[in-house]
Amino acid sequence: MSDRTLCVIGLGLIGGSLLRAAGGAGWKVRGTARPGTNLTAARDAGFDVSSSIEDVLAGAAADDALIVLAVPLPAIAEVLPVVARHAPDCRLTDVVSVKAPVAAAVARQTRCARYVGGHPMAGTSTSGWAAGSAMLFTGAPWVVSSDEGTDPLVWAQVATLALDCGAHVVPAGAAEHDAAVARISHLPHVLAAVLASSGAGGGPLALALGAGSYSDGTRVAASQPELVRAMCEGNRDALLDAVDDALGRLGAARGSLASTGALEATLRAGHHARLDFEAARAAAGEKGTGTIDLSARGSMRRLRELGHLGGRVVGLQGTRCQIQR
Amino acid sequence: MSDRTLCVIGLGLIGGSLLRAAGGAGWKVRGTARPGTNLTAARDAGFDVSSSIEDVLAGAAADDALIVLAVPLPAIAEVLPVVARHAPDCRLTDVVSVKAPVAAAVARQTRCARYVGGHPMAGTSTSGWAAGSAMLFTGAPWVVSSDEGTDPLVWAQVATLALDCGAHVVPAGAAEHDAAVARISHLPHVLAAVLASSGAGGGPLALALGAGSYSDGTRVAASQPELVRAMCEGNRDALLDAVDDALGRLGAARGSLASTGALEATLRAGHHARLDFEAARAAAGEKGTGTIDLSARGSMRRLRELGHLGGRVVGLQGTRCQIQR
Repeated sequence: MSDRTLCVIGLGLIGGSLLRAAGGAGWKVRGTARPGTNLTAARDAGFDVSSSIEDVLAGAAADDALIVLAVPLPAIAEVLPVVARHAPDCRLTDVVSVKAPVAAAVARQTRCARYVGGHPMAGTSTSGWAAGSAMLFTGAPWVVSSDEGTDPLVWAQVATLALDCGAHVVPAGAAEHDAAVARISHLPHVLAAVLASSGAGGGPLALALGAGSYSDGTRVAASQPELVRAMCEGNRDALLDAVDDALGRLGAARGSLASTGALEATLRAGHHARLDFEAARAAAGEKGTGTIDLSARGSMRRLRELGHLGGRVVGLQGTRCQIQR
Repeated sequence: MSDRTLCVIGLGLIGGSLLRAAGGAGWKVRGTARPGTNLTAARDAGFDVSSSIEDVLAGAAADDALIVLAVPLPAIAEVLPVVARHAPDCRLTDVVSVKAPVAAAVARQTRCARYVGGHPMAGTSTSGWAAGSAMLFTGAPWVVSSDEGTDPLVWAQVATLALDCGAHVVPAGAAEHDAAVARISHLPHVLAAVLASSGAGGGPLALALGAGSYSDGTRVAASQPELVRAMCEGNRDALLDAVDDALGRLGAARGSLASTGALEATLRAGHHARLDFEAARAAAGEKGTGTIDLSARGSMRRLRELGHLGGRVVGLQGTRCQIQR
């Protein structure tokens, strides 16, 4: 076996970037995708890829590779039985934007004990191998699921992959991850769509006057709606909570504007929240450093606490995580 | 009298930029502001400014200048009686982000028949003389009110000012303007505040994962909340309609997600609206050109129709407007 052998299933934006980034970092990489432009482009770029998922998984099993599911959420259910049949003992992760539904599918379809979910927070407004790059993950947060019962050795290998790709690791429970991304990734897409439609409802005059605030607020509505839909609908329960939160806040603003004419509470709260966000980005990692030993009792709990407070893992030596708060 | 003599009341971001842009375009310019950093900076930059609004208005009256109200909406009611007292016959415009309330205040407080409202659509996330520049209006839409009964000669001078500052003129009725900016300027600020708060409600983990969509969608929440508040609250009726429209769309998305789990209608409509916006920007002025003669009967109606369909005025020769659709 090799410590750094990777098998990527799916060669779109994320899978394709992963092949390039991990390959560039010294991992032995192979990949598979359906016949088409992504597969052809990966082969033309000199990568060891094949349209035969069975062959590729057999090779992964022989090498004891880390397998990455880099297909959209709706395709996970198709791919898992194939993985379970051809590489049942391999360590397994994924890059899907929701974690609890994927973990549930893995438990249901494979009884794989060596799965640890992952989610690199990299762009989705473009797609396909051609849109990817070895630098896609540089500086990005890469969530690694850290629920109780997680195998620390599999966790360590997924974290190593993330770090080798230039990302930092944000540990989180699967449900906690899903709630967080509902608020900062899926809700923004829904609100951008609503704003885009409300603006366009004002006709050509409104669109002719649209500039900074409308343009910024609707930018992600340019994303492929099918991809956004799969992402949002796959996180339905958490997204419902986030939409209800936004509906409550918008309804409160409406009520205040209609009754007293005041928007102070809404605008001030939003302003402070935005400043908090900017401050969190600016101060990331500056509140302190330390280590968490994966082999110690309670390590997953400690990792989740770190992520919960906005911290990250920035290095890994053996079983020792180097952390920043 | 001079055709190009300007008197700017208020020397903040917009007023200060106006002094510089119009001055650079050959207008004779003077300005006034309360004692403070804006006034001092304008004087240090060599402009003819004074803290005595009475003196400056007397000069404007002597020169038959175009007076521009460049103070925030809440200060308009204070300034108008002073203008009515010291320069009652001057042509008057403003740069406030709502038009119907200012027009109503002018009618109520001055009985000035020579007022034509204006609104240059330039940034508001920074403020003060120091944040301004002679280039602020370059390429920007500048709405000029074109309601029935508007004096074409005053309209022409306001349009000339806009064009000389590098903007293009978008003609619109005051109420139509207010409805449009509620949708593409004021609603985006409210939704940005709501999104910022909903994201921050997810705690430090959510903020640590926030990137493209959350960052773009909340950018304008960084603006000074007092300025945003004055702008939004000043357009209360139209903004209520826009918020209700957004609440309806968000509620529909919520219902669909909860019942069938589908967001297709919401996301597809938003995607098409965003593409329409991008297409409108790209194609602006490419659908045809022509002229509208301000001295002809029905010119204001024709101008409003032009703006309603997304068109603009890009030049003015005597009373002939050069238009682009």
